[in-house]
Amino acid sequence: MDEESGDFTEDDYNIPSIKYEYLDHTADVQLHAWGNSMKEAFEQCGMAMFGYMTDLAYVEIKEVHTIEANADDMMGLLYHFLDELLYLFSVEPYLICKKVVITEFNTEEFKIVCKCYGEEFQIGKHPQGTEVKAITYSAMQIVDEPKDNKYEVFVIIDI
Amino acid sequence: MDEESGDFTEDDYNIPSIKYEYLDHTADVQLHAWGNSMKEAFEQCGMAMFGYMTDLAYVEIKEVHTIEANADDMMGLLYHFLDELLYLFSVEPYLICKKVVITEFNTEEFKIVCKCYGEEFQIGKHPQGTEVKAITYSAMQIVDEPKDNKYEVFVIIDI
Repeated sequence: MDEESGDFTEDDYNIPSIKYEYLDHTADVQLHAWGNSMKEAFEQCGMAMFGYMTDLAYVEIKEVHTIEANADDMMGLLYHFLDELLYLFSVEPYLICKKVVITEFNTEEFKIVCKCYGEEFQIGKHPQGTEVKAITYSAMQIVDEPKDNKYEVFVIIDI
Repeated sequence: MDEESGDFTEDDYNIPSIKYEYLDHTADVQLHAWGNSMKEAFEQCGMAMFGYMTDLAYVEIKEVHTIEANADDMMGLLYHFLDELLYLFSVEPYLICKKVVITEFNTEEFKIVCKCYGEEFQIGKHPQGTEVKAITYSAMQIVDEPKDNKYEVFVIIDI
């Protein structure tokens, strides 16, 4: 790499017309949640997702909605659980959940029933965080080591 | 999904402590550049990268530096060309290029010599765009169809 100083010609200062564009911005973030039980880790993961969408300190508990998720294995269950939560926000009731409480956590039949507490998202009241576009299975981890009391989940979401 | 209205208990309003965190944010953007020759498409791609790092309207031509890139094929050449440009910015002279002019474009020996016009990046003078962390080979495309006068490149960069 050489440096040249000095005298530029007029042509040196001519700037070419623009023949480029920017495409396909993609991004993701990994949620890491834990708890004293796998149920709690799942609940925390759900709240983590909503916490990324807005500042939960501004969200009040005004409504409760119940969701169900079913799957064929634990990873599928985590995926569908988060997907159902995301759906609550994406369509009516446009719910931002401040708290999620799993009332049925069946790890044999892979079924979850969950109460979702919060309120409708309102621009102005709730700071706009980052839009969550999709849940992914990418690098998903479920750590289940009861003897160490270690229950953790890792989920990458597209934003 | 059911909706329940109404009477919440005190416990319904209790918010769990936070047991989650956000990890590993990653993102990328695809540069798409074109020209009346492959040389021009490469030059445009280089300028596209700098245009992502700041608003080039604020950059003046005060210095010129010369870079060289070598590779074993055209994709390698595009990669190393952009990587050399990025290096100009990453270390001294911390150059933001407003214009790049390829003076040697050898597509048989895969060699580029390029003049890079611009100035040192200065916070305050130059709006801070997005940091470019790395060039990638991911989904790289080089479209070379002289009969249609179609010269295009697509490069994904990590940001």
